[in-house]
Amino acid sequence: MGGEEVSNKQVILRDFVTGFPKESDFHVRTSSICLKLPQSSKNGVLVKNLFLSCDPYMRILMLQAYVPFPIDSFTPGSVIYGYGVARVLESREPNLKEGDLVWGVTGWEEYSVIEETQKLFKIQHLDVPLSYYTGILGMPGVTAYFGFYDVCCPKKGESVFVSAASGAVGQLVGQFAKLLGCYVVGSAGTQPKIELLKNKFGFDEAFNYKEEPNLDAALKRYFPKGIDIYFENVGGKMLDAVLGNMSIHGRIAVCGMISQYNLENTEGVHNLLNIVLQRIRMQGFECFDYYHRYSEFLDAVLPLIRAGKLSYVEDIADGLNAGPAALVGLFSGRNVGKQVVAVSAQSCN
Amino acid sequence: MGGEEVSNKQVILRDFVTGFPKESDFHVRTSSICLKLPQSSKNGVLVKNLFLSCDPYMRILMLQAYVPFPIDSFTPGSVIYGYGVARVLESREPNLKEGDLVWGVTGWEEYSVIEETQKLFKIQHLDVPLSYYTGILGMPGVTAYFGFYDVCCPKKGESVFVSAASGAVGQLVGQFAKLLGCYVVGSAGTQPKIELLKNKFGFDEAFNYKEEPNLDAALKRYFPKGIDIYFENVGGKMLDAVLGNMSIHGRIAVCGMISQYNLENTEGVHNLLNIVLQRIRMQGFECFDYYHRYSEFLDAVLPLIRAGKLSYVEDIADGLNAGPAALVGLFSGRNVGKQVVAVSAQSCN
Repeated sequence: MGGEEVSNKQVILRDFVTGFPKESDFHVRTSSICLKLPQSSKNGVLVKNLFLSCDPYMRILMLQAYVPFPIDSFTPGSVIYGYGVARVLESREPNLKEGDLVWGVTGWEEYSVIEETQKLFKIQHLDVPLSYYTGILGMPGVTAYFGFYDVCCPKKGESVFVSAASGAVGQLVGQFAKLLGCYVVGSAGTQPKIELLKNKFGFDEAFNYKEEPNLDAALKRYFPKGIDIYFENVGGKMLDAVLGNMSIHGRIAVCGMISQYNLENTEGVHNLLNIVLQRIRMQGFECFDYYHRYSEFLDAVLPLIRAGKLSYVEDIADGLNAGPAALVGLFSGRNVGKQVVAVSAQSCN
Repeated sequence: MGGEEVSNKQVILRDFVTGFPKESDFHVRTSSICLKLPQSSKNGVLVKNLFLSCDPYMRILMLQAYVPFPIDSFTPGSVIYGYGVARVLESREPNLKEGDLVWGVTGWEEYSVIEETQKLFKIQHLDVPLSYYTGILGMPGVTAYFGFYDVCCPKKGESVFVSAASGAVGQLVGQFAKLLGCYVVGSAGTQPKIELLKNKFGFDEAFNYKEEPNLDAALKRYFPKGIDIYFENVGGKMLDAVLGNMSIHGRIAVCGMISQYNLENTEGVHNLLNIVLQRIRMQGFECFDYYHRYSEFLDAVLPLIRAGKLSYVEDIADGLNAGPAALVGLFSGRNVGKQVVAVSAQSCN
């Protein structure tokens, strides 16, 4: 009845986090797991995790306070979870069988039992790197695609500004906007990222927000006629500066506000009156509302990847031991491109 | 060639205004006017003003700083202007003739020469009070109607919160929401206004924001399941509290932010992260974008007024001398209902 007993390395949250998360907020332990679905489970799958995704929203799951969010907060003392790519070892689901590859919500550990299989997508296309299903072909891709095309309602020739532009979502939004014929400017926090934006992703302009003494002046320099579309990933001071530089009937798609997640008291935003004066639409959205359109997304994006019209830069940390540092590194901008954790050296097999 | 020379009482802005406007920021002078369109004018109309409208946006026109707004700022030393109802005395416009009644942008004076006649609407329906064309059938009516139906996308049974709810726009939004079958709560700043909301306009609930030590707690009391629609007229602290109490996919129609117009440094709003978490749409709008649909609006609203299904409360100040006090009174909430100035005792003739 029982399967093989193997060791299972796991990333554990020590306690709820206040302020910036630190590596020491987590510990990596080696537990053991029986490679067999529990007898009691009527459904579910047992998977071997291959790649894990580091995403800013995970900071919200480290908060003790109740936050209205479609993914439950982490439990101190337990394994953390997030998006990942995994191989099915055993399945009681009709649509999944041993050997299938999936992406979706899984644990930060070598092996996971996943009961909420409605949060898994079967991977059908293997001519692209498997890790892409944590990024360009996974949650960040869905977020960028629908956030840009559906929420921003972009038109050819419009002016687009993307913050955290070299990140998992931002790099895609900028490229989608360029493909549509928009003028695109991105901001990021290091010179190598700025160069990536201009040379790899084809942004028209990019600037290092940390080196701008006055964000308002920087935006006026790049957008003398105003910003038609702002793809918001950071919040706070940047949002305030953008609000003072929008065009009439401009749109702000609010994807995230990474600069605010670690603050106990968020920064006050002052320029909201411009929402009336400029008739701005500011809209929050989440990938969860678009997953039913995943095949539409794949149909659009896979051909662009195959044709070399869409690049994707990943920053892959090696092994679960490197996971905590990779995860907390998001909040200091340590990663260059999409931050992924390869669970083990065998991830690619 | 010349017409009769008559006296023309006028309200003049002394200088640009900082902080709360005061009666002394204006003076009323008696000038004279020749009741004849200037020989040089190719077009335009000469009108006798009957009713003038006091509206919060006029505060923005008193600022020295450039503000992106479809109506030019006032000029110190000159007559102020705004929406009003007037009778045509002479016309060089094919669509207007002597004796016609119009509403639109005119001067705060007894007689005005109006050259921008594209900003005038001919009044066709006289079975309602003429002053209504400064309110329920004028700019505030258009604002309330399209702001609610178009921007808020309301559905029967939804929970609606309206701030400055007894004002020119708010009282209409609340009644439109009730007619649609929504649960409607309003806030205002005095007990008589609260009673008006509940007893005259049929709001389900109303509260005096000045008597609530904690706006967040007040909103949680009236909206235990969250606010689906917020019709925003005030901004600042109220907006912050509302952002903490919205439902998923809630909508905020930003009509104005009267609490912020007199502040040199606007209040910071902190709860914007909820825009992502709750996937909120926050949209600024202005009546100017809806004037081409004025006849659609009249077709919907006139029958409701005639059938007694829509009430409208006005606060009519008597004579131009009372104009400055009426106008600045908006910002201390002195008015009960739509603030209008009757230019003279003959306004109704």
